[in-house]
Amino acid sequence: MKPNMNQQEIAEKSSAILHQADKCARTLGIQIVEVSPGGAVVSMTVHADYANGHGYCQGGIITTLADTAFAHACNSHNEMNVAQGLSIEFVRSAKIGERLLATAVEQSNGKRTGVYQVLVTNSDDRIVAIFSGKSFSRNQAIFSD
Amino acid sequence: MKPNMNQQEIAEKSSAILHQADKCARTLGIQIVEVSPGGAVVSMTVHADYANGHGYCQGGIITTLADTAFAHACNSHNEMNVAQGLSIEFVRSAKIGERLLATAVEQSNGKRTGVYQVLVTNSDDRIVAIFSGKSFSRNQAIFSD
Amino acid sequence: MKPNMNQQEIAEKSSAILHQADKCARTLGIQIVEVSPGGAVVSMTVHADYANGHGYCQGGIITTLADTAFAHACNSHNEMNVAQGLSIEFVRSAKIGERLLATAVEQSNGKRTGVYQVLVTNSDDRIVAIFSGKSFSRNQAIFSD
Amino acid sequence: MKPNMNQQEIAEKSSAILHQADKCARTLGIQIVEVSPGGAVVSMTVHADYANGHGYCQGGIITTLADTAFAHACNSHNEMNVAQGLSIEFVRSAKIGERLLATAVEQSNGKRTGVYQVLVTNSDDRIVAIFSGKSFSRNQAIFSD
Repeated sequence: MKPNMNQQEIAEKSSAILHQADKCARTLGIQIVEVSPGGAVVSMTVHADYANGHGYCQGGIITTLADTAFAHACNSHNEMNVAQGLSIEFVRSAKIGERLLATAVEQSNGKRTGVYQVLVTNSDDRIVAIFSGKSFSRNQAIFSD
Repeated sequence: MKPNMNQQEIAEKSSAILHQADKCARTLGIQIVEVSPGGAVVSMTVHADYANGHGYCQGGIITTLADTAFAHACNSHNEMNVAQGLSIEFVRSAKIGERLLATAVEQSNGKRTGVYQVLVTNSDDRIVAIFSGKSFSRNQAIFSD
Repeated sequence: MKPNMNQQEIAEKSSAILHQADKCARTLGIQIVEVSPGGAVVSMTVHADYANGHGYCQGGIITTLADTAFAHACNSHNEMNVAQGLSIEFVRSAKIGERLLATAVEQSNGKRTGVYQVLVTNSDDRIVAIFSGKSFSRNQAIFSD
Repeated sequence: MKPNMNQQEIAEKSSAILHQADKCARTLGIQIVEVSPGGAVVSMTVHADYANGHGYCQGGIITTLADTAFAHACNSHNEMNVAQGLSIEFVRSAKIGERLLATAVEQSNGKRTGVYQVLVTNSDDRIVAIFSGKSFSRNQAIFSD
């Protein structure tokens, strides 16, 4: 990688490469709002197609949104990371049409594993879900120049 | 509800009502393979649109599949339950085109809360993910006759 | 309860009652450093008796410390809450003799359930463990006057 | 290690070495009931000193019991493993004087990480807690001859 890239530029380039290949995010209409070293903010509007049997946004789709923020955060250091596992607590239902924001922060980043928290909030800035993701490093760069 | 319905009939009717309203499951092509009192098996083929930035099925989509099995299992007693939270460990990547099966079993079903384990397996019958869902009862029937 | 008690006084009284009955905390030498509405800080020194087979503080004992902070935080509103479940990620080993601090914050507090995050740190202020606790309200006061 | 040791003998020797060094298990009175390749059963009687502020066995102590079963299971292949993290759902309170059993089974065992489920049951064989542990391999043997 260019020796003169700073951490923010590395985060942005890693994120752009990841998003370019991420069909799932595009399928769901997930947008990358911002990335930073160890952090990411992504957003999605709850489409009617995402409704579960109770009429609210399916929890797995909220998880996918949070997981996407997590992916951009844990891959922001130009080191390829995959999700080992995650947990999520659903605090408030998300209605069809609501725009959700998922904000990921790095809580720990060790040699091989990392821990990231993601808060999913609605347009009233109230918490919809609290997510924790565990990453595992592939010991491999995302880009090389 | 009809006094002469048995537990299996109740599970099937609850599941049919849930699936009928579940746009997300239909959007993703999730099929209900079978339901039983406290249990459910659902399946999904990994569409190219579900690929993450690394080219494998996005973990949130695997979570959605498992969450759907969990929803049918925890709503199988004609008592409306919602997901409080879940955790999932990703054991093996799922490739585009693979058919995944999610099998939910009830581990605990208390007055207000329940715990369900879901195993997601691939066509080789190998574990893709291990999921645990926590349900919360709305103290409300799904159907009344 | 006295009509003139403020939220901080309620938190302190709830915590004092809880700690008074908490034999486990006393057995392990856990001290309550401070409580606030929705929050708590507790501490413990890692005794040689808490070592696991690898020579570091057993993860379950770190969990007990975090769980104690969680208990004081989720019981700080004079409403009896019990732990439904918890998850914890171990980030760094804790050595015998180290003094650990567990700091709990309320992330969500609904009608019946709440979510609390606890960070366990060592004397260098580095994260040892990241804990998430889910509470369930008994709909019952802790004290009545 | 002796070329003629079978998997069961390896599990028993790994467990004996681990238990010998495990001061925490001895402090709490945890006994190793049996080990097998990938599995372990351990037991503990709830001492009055383990009571929380509500008068039942502190959840962290139940976690420590489950974590001990997990440790013996994930270290049963003569490969040193540590806990990365765990989650536990508390299903039923454990009273003072009750004898608890924790039974660990291996759900996944990859190159570096593994997933183990532990069920904690009481003397009526009812589930007290459902635990999931994530292991990380140190790529190091427990014993060499």
